[in-house]
Amino acid sequence: MPDVQSKPEDADKKGPSHEAPPITDFLDRTRFPVDPWRLVEQQFSDENLGTTETVFALGNGYLGMRGNVEEGRDSHSHGTFLNGFHETWPIQHAEEAYGFARVGQTIVNAPDAKVIRLYVDDEPLLLPVADLLDYERAIDFRTGVHHRDILWRTPAGKRVHLRTTRMVSLTQRHLAVMTFEVTMLDDSAPVAISSQILNRQDGEDEYHVPDKAMGEGVDPRKAERLIRRVLQPVLHRGDKERGRVELGYRCTDSGMTLGVAADHQFSTDNQYTCDVDVSEDLAKIVYRIDAEPGQTVRLTKLVSYHTSRGVPPRELLDRCRRTLDRAASEGVEKVEADQREWLDDFWHRSDVVVEGEDKIQQALRWNLFQVAQASARAEGSGIPAKGVTGSGYGGHYFWDAEIYVLPFLTYTRPQAARAALRFRYTLLDAARRRAAELAQKGALFPWRTINGEEASAYYAAGTAQYHINADIAYALAQYVAASGDLDFLVREGIDVLVETARMWADLGFWREDNGGDFHIHGVTGPDEYTTVVNDNLFTNVMARFNLRRAAEAVRELRELDGPQYDALVERLELQDDEIGEWERAAEGMSIPYDEHLGVHPQDLHFLEREVWDLGNTPLEQRPLLLHYHPLVIYRFQVLKQADVVLALLLQGELFTDEQKRAAFEYYDPITTGDSTLSAVAQSIMAAEVGYDDLALRYFLSSLFVDLADLHQNAADGVHVASTGGVWGALVFGFAGFRDQSGRFTFDPRLPEQWPSLTFRLMLRGNRVRVTLGQDQIELVVEEGEEVTLDVRGESVTVTTGGPTTVHLKGQGPHLDGEPAPIAGRQRADGSVIEAIVPGA
Amino acid sequence: MPDVQSKPEDADKKGPSHEAPPITDFLDRTRFPVDPWRLVEQQFSDENLGTTETVFALGNGYLGMRGNVEEGRDSHSHGTFLNGFHETWPIQHAEEAYGFARVGQTIVNAPDAKVIRLYVDDEPLLLPVADLLDYERAIDFRTGVHHRDILWRTPAGKRVHLRTTRMVSLTQRHLAVMTFEVTMLDDSAPVAISSQILNRQDGEDEYHVPDKAMGEGVDPRKAERLIRRVLQPVLHRGDKERGRVELGYRCTDSGMTLGVAADHQFSTDNQYTCDVDVSEDLAKIVYRIDAEPGQTVRLTKLVSYHTSRGVPPRELLDRCRRTLDRAASEGVEKVEADQREWLDDFWHRSDVVVEGEDKIQQALRWNLFQVAQASARAEGSGIPAKGVTGSGYGGHYFWDAEIYVLPFLTYTRPQAARAALRFRYTLLDAARRRAAELAQKGALFPWRTINGEEASAYYAAGTAQYHINADIAYALAQYVAASGDLDFLVREGIDVLVETARMWADLGFWREDNGGDFHIHGVTGPDEYTTVVNDNLFTNVMARFNLRRAAEAVRELRELDGPQYDALVERLELQDDEIGEWERAAEGMSIPYDEHLGVHPQDLHFLEREVWDLGNTPLEQRPLLLHYHPLVIYRFQVLKQADVVLALLLQGELFTDEQKRAAFEYYDPITTGDSTLSAVAQSIMAAEVGYDDLALRYFLSSLFVDLADLHQNAADGVHVASTGGVWGALVFGFAGFRDQSGRFTFDPRLPEQWPSLTFRLMLRGNRVRVTLGQDQIELVVEEGEEVTLDVRGESVTVTTGGPTTVHLKGQGPHLDGEPAPIAGRQRADGSVIEAIVPGA
Repeated sequence: MPDVQSKPEDADKKGPSHEAPPITDFLDRTRFPVDPWRLVEQQFSDENLGTTETVFALGNGYLGMRGNVEEGRDSHSHGTFLNGFHETWPIQHAEEAYGFARVGQTIVNAPDAKVIRLYVDDEPLLLPVADLLDYERAIDFRTGVHHRDILWRTPAGKRVHLRTTRMVSLTQRHLAVMTFEVTMLDDSAPVAISSQILNRQDGEDEYHVPDKAMGEGVDPRKAERLIRRVLQPVLHRGDKERGRVELGYRCTDSGMTLGVAADHQFSTDNQYTCDVDVSEDLAKIVYRIDAEPGQTVRLTKLVSYHTSRGVPPRELLDRCRRTLDRAASEGVEKVEADQREWLDDFWHRSDVVVEGEDKIQQALRWNLFQVAQASARAEGSGIPAKGVTGSGYGGHYFWDAEIYVLPFLTYTRPQAARAALRFRYTLLDAARRRAAELAQKGALFPWRTINGEEASAYYAAGTAQYHINADIAYALAQYVAASGDLDFLVREGIDVLVETARMWADLGFWREDNGGDFHIHGVTGPDEYTTVVNDNLFTNVMARFNLRRAAEAVRELRELDGPQYDALVERLELQDDEIGEWERAAEGMSIPYDEHLGVHPQDLHFLEREVWDLGNTPLEQRPLLLHYHPLVIYRFQVLKQADVVLALLLQGELFTDEQKRAAFEYYDPITTGDSTLSAVAQSIMAAEVGYDDLALRYFLSSLFVDLADLHQNAADGVHVASTGGVWGALVFGFAGFRDQSGRFTFDPRLPEQWPSLTFRLMLRGNRVRVTLGQDQIELVVEEGEEVTLDVRGESVTVTTGGPTTVHLKGQGPHLDGEPAPIAGRQRADGSVIEAIVPGA
Repeated sequence: MPDVQSKPEDADKKGPSHEAPPITDFLDRTRFPVDPWRLVEQQFSDENLGTTETVFALGNGYLGMRGNVEEGRDSHSHGTFLNGFHETWPIQHAEEAYGFARVGQTIVNAPDAKVIRLYVDDEPLLLPVADLLDYERAIDFRTGVHHRDILWRTPAGKRVHLRTTRMVSLTQRHLAVMTFEVTMLDDSAPVAISSQILNRQDGEDEYHVPDKAMGEGVDPRKAERLIRRVLQPVLHRGDKERGRVELGYRCTDSGMTLGVAADHQFSTDNQYTCDVDVSEDLAKIVYRIDAEPGQTVRLTKLVSYHTSRGVPPRELLDRCRRTLDRAASEGVEKVEADQREWLDDFWHRSDVVVEGEDKIQQALRWNLFQVAQASARAEGSGIPAKGVTGSGYGGHYFWDAEIYVLPFLTYTRPQAARAALRFRYTLLDAARRRAAELAQKGALFPWRTINGEEASAYYAAGTAQYHINADIAYALAQYVAASGDLDFLVREGIDVLVETARMWADLGFWREDNGGDFHIHGVTGPDEYTTVVNDNLFTNVMARFNLRRAAEAVRELRELDGPQYDALVERLELQDDEIGEWERAAEGMSIPYDEHLGVHPQDLHFLEREVWDLGNTPLEQRPLLLHYHPLVIYRFQVLKQADVVLALLLQGELFTDEQKRAAFEYYDPITTGDSTLSAVAQSIMAAEVGYDDLALRYFLSSLFVDLADLHQNAADGVHVASTGGVWGALVFGFAGFRDQSGRFTFDPRLPEQWPSLTFRLMLRGNRVRVTLGQDQIELVVEEGEEVTLDVRGESVTVTTGGPTTVHLKGQGPHLDGEPAPIAGRQRADGSVIEAIVPGA
């Protein structure tokens, strides 16, 4: 690509396109040294506060705490989030229309229980100005603990040793545990420790560092700012004897309720006093200590959050108390041990090892750890785009979870995948109402939501993405196929499959004058740089899957189970002729293909557009969405993210190798990667078609998207879909694993730089360990019975009886370099395709 | 159409589609009797207050006063508007994007000087509850005076005769004159008259009758409601001796300023006292009279408004005083005489007489009078969609003026057309900035604006309507052709032609793989039920005209005038190769045509859509925009308003009769007419292709769109474009007048019910009277020299020397009934077109 060849020095601003620089450029290793099991910071810096708050965030899928320092003050944004705990507000459209989304939903920044301020000689510890003799903070992926170890020389020259830990429990979703240890090393001093729960919603104590990278006010990816009071205080209590403080709130408009309570265990041999002060927005316990040198002061703070759609805060605080009492009686050590056990199991199922690549290994484990943090205890909620690490995208659930995160869960922790799919099932009634509002039968899942109602205020890139229906059906079918969980299918999953299929059958139509194809008009595919088109390839391919799978499932269940089948016929008012209608629609589905160029157009008329000359578009004009009017972007062949390429990946068995390669070579040069969802899909497809070098570069840019803030918005929270996609790039990309048409297959393309790649898959209840080397693949069932797999067409039965080894002849196809730009290519008629930069 | 054949009783709810009922159904003639020169109301009713306020509104293109009664209270909306006097506000998009309109602009409801309250025995006159023995109000189109004559029996049984007049001067744009005459007929009584200027913006004294016909909050056609204070009081003064009160304001955000002053002349033989009370939002003069029977009390109130972009209110009030002083010194009689003279001239130029059809004649004159009221003294401003009669569409200027109103002005009062076009010229710099913002060269006029900045908050049906550029160029070219005003062309008009052509040349592109056509993608045509499409026929046809006319004009001016041409080359930085580029683009312009169906598709892919079954769509689902999500509407072949039909009308010489008929027959059955812009275009084309009966019905529904509130939103103000279109339907439709390719032609199609139709045209400075009968057309130059015309191919030279008569053999083609629904028609392959009602 010209822009990179001529301007390599700019490449690190660009994000995940294939101009990614070598891995060693991504992080400052003096500050962030390599450690395969930990993310470590060894120099404090208040630059990139937003990014470090995100990458050092802790969460369990329910409760999330950004990586703010305990002492408070300087921050990008103090953040504590409870998955699904949101405020609603009426969406004001600048110009109204029927059916526009009405109910805005924004995750609430909950009262902050992380705050523990430290004063020595009445001087506060403020890291940005403090004289730090030693500094380390780290998250250990094996313990899930965020710890800091700081040696501070106070303004008076006294050395203070501070050690803190913070942990959000993966086994008790309502619990977080913090410790705070202070030791005066040389001199005595009056020390004060003020532990707080601070409701910051009105801006109190907020020292906001604006994110200069983004234009003010124009970035649709940030959360709405609610300028009114969101949390109405309902009650506050303090109990000095027990060191317990409690606050209860109700959201003004959504009516959701929250209780937060903290217990404090304080120990020291020094003299000290304790004061408790609790008011509506601040609960505070202050310890004043006459600290002698060498006498450690230790505070343990246990925090519990409970939330609800409407249970009174008083009752939620009862629940908090039970959580805290149990933790106290079991002891913090037990909580830590449980956490370690949970993570041992997680890594045992989910770890991926890239031999000899510690930098990759560290980043990779950080990514996988993020999926755990986003999903572990999400339970009745979905998996938000940012997990519980930030307010980006308002805490909403999108298709990202189904397409990018669920495969990882399905093949490593199937019960977590089931929980996420069950959550969609609980939204089915809302989706039925939404379909009716859009004049359709069946159910239409909202493009973005927390409570089940469509919250997308921009329909062209929101509501128009009907493909969400098929994405959910796809993830559901993938889970059922991989797990064999027919119980879920027959009781709940079938309802989702049927209602989504009904929507497609009703939305599409037969065009008799065109050979009788079934068409879907006026929808938007995953690529948001082209909207409201006819026969978007991704949508049609996935809708076809949805229709087929629903028909197949109904037929399967009819065979399987009399009374249960009768129940679902009644529940869903299933008509016999529906099944045939879905099958005919699937069979007749229009799948646009351009014979001249030999590529599948992104939509029926995509190839009629002008081609955007990305190579000559200045880097400061990226991402395009922040520099061009949508009308300009939509007019061109230019992609925010993979669309056809993703379809050909998800439904790969239905397309030829030539088609995949042609699609990749056509779309890759016009894909900006302005969405982080793009790089992982492009990595997998690059690996499949043979652009092995490019596959690795896309993989690396996904791997570091947040750690190195490659999209300049890591501050808003972790790109959870990308973290899930990192696993996909390894397993589906380099290992070439597929689970299609009832077969588990491998077609490896291990990068030549890597000696081996090891991971586990849960296949129909059996855990298979896969070790892929340059010349062989080794398979063994670690838990369960036997599994039949297929390596490059060779059927292999794998058992617990020791590794089965299949020798490989090389690692898949190899193509040099990367696809050429489209501009300059010749059409069938001999004319040359041109490209322009709009407005240049 | 099935719905009408089966449900004729519902037709009057439907609005201007071809199911229009017979003319006699439109108005209650007991209440609104027929009078060819006046709109008269002979029974008071407080139903349809919104409509009567609109249809009895007065205006002069600058100052507008809704037809509220002087006594105040019950109203749909008290309204006083000054063209272009607006407040700005930041448009809040529910989801932001680059280039979205930023500056909301809303016409301000100015302080109300209409208020004159009457109390007898301390009892107020309130029409809705008053015992009215006699009642009439009327607007006389010859005098421009709104008068009322009321006989009121007070609660105490005393008869009071009240006569009021109100006039907004057409010769002094800042002046309005009111008179208020009270006579006790039988008994004496204490009478109080309180004359006010009332700034109602904060809702004081507002008794709002909600418009139940429209859904709350969802109608994008209403003005924004600004809930904060808009007008900041700057000064207020009263002068009891002169009976003068003054108020001055500044708009909070736009900074625009306003001064309003009123003089009072009071005369009576009764005893009376007078009090003046002026505060920030209320200036009041109260006369207390001991009224004796038969002794008339007469108040004359002269009101002046001045507005500015920023001149201090103090200075504006100086201007008001000068206006009032002059009116006082000349005398009210002189103002009235000037008014009458102005209107005599107006009617002499502009009247259209339909012989023997008084109901039509009355409504027709009301419509023409509305154009006068919207345009007479607009001068530095444009012509808003609602004139100065209401706040609908926020007081914005659209393309309506150029395409629907300007033809009337061009052919009857060319100087008014020039003023309106000059106004666009003054916005050219803003249009250049907007083009750059949308990554285009040249200028792009905003879809809706007051101050020149794009104010359309919904780009799909706003900013995407690039055709506005060509509409302005078209009106400009039409004006220059009809008037021969080369001075305007060379000094200002050429800049508009060149800059708009540049935008088209840059926006479109050559598609080499499609025979080398020039394409325009991602735009919306006039029909807003299909948006953001490729090669919208209207847009391409009109852009082609724009490109050609710009090239032609530059070539003409090059011939004409050395120094002036050099000046414009320098001013516009004209490049020689540009002209050729525009001509090549025009020549290569893609004009989609479907050989199978023999029709021009509305856009390249329009015919691929499903067909909406309008015939079976319940009437309560109309207009569609209030009952279906845009995505649903956009997915179908269904039109809000004429699009292809309008293009084939405006550029008729470039299409064959067969093409026009085919287009009409295809689009008419799928055109909802949910826009009032539709019926007039459909009437003209129906007349041209031979659906004479339908032509008349469309004409009638346009004629009564406001008078009979056929679209249920007359309350928001007069549909000015439709009133202009009424003239077009007569002149271009029934008289078949065209001015294309440098020739003036007639191809008459007079309805068989009408004996004759008479009107005047200004053709290159000559006023030609046209009298069209069933068997002949009579032409004479009333003022000027000779004009060469063409009647059905026969060249006719018309002079001042007496009428030239051309005999006609009949009145154009005749086709029975109306076009059949599309559903059921056969395609070339024998398949049958189907239609559906979405969601049914």
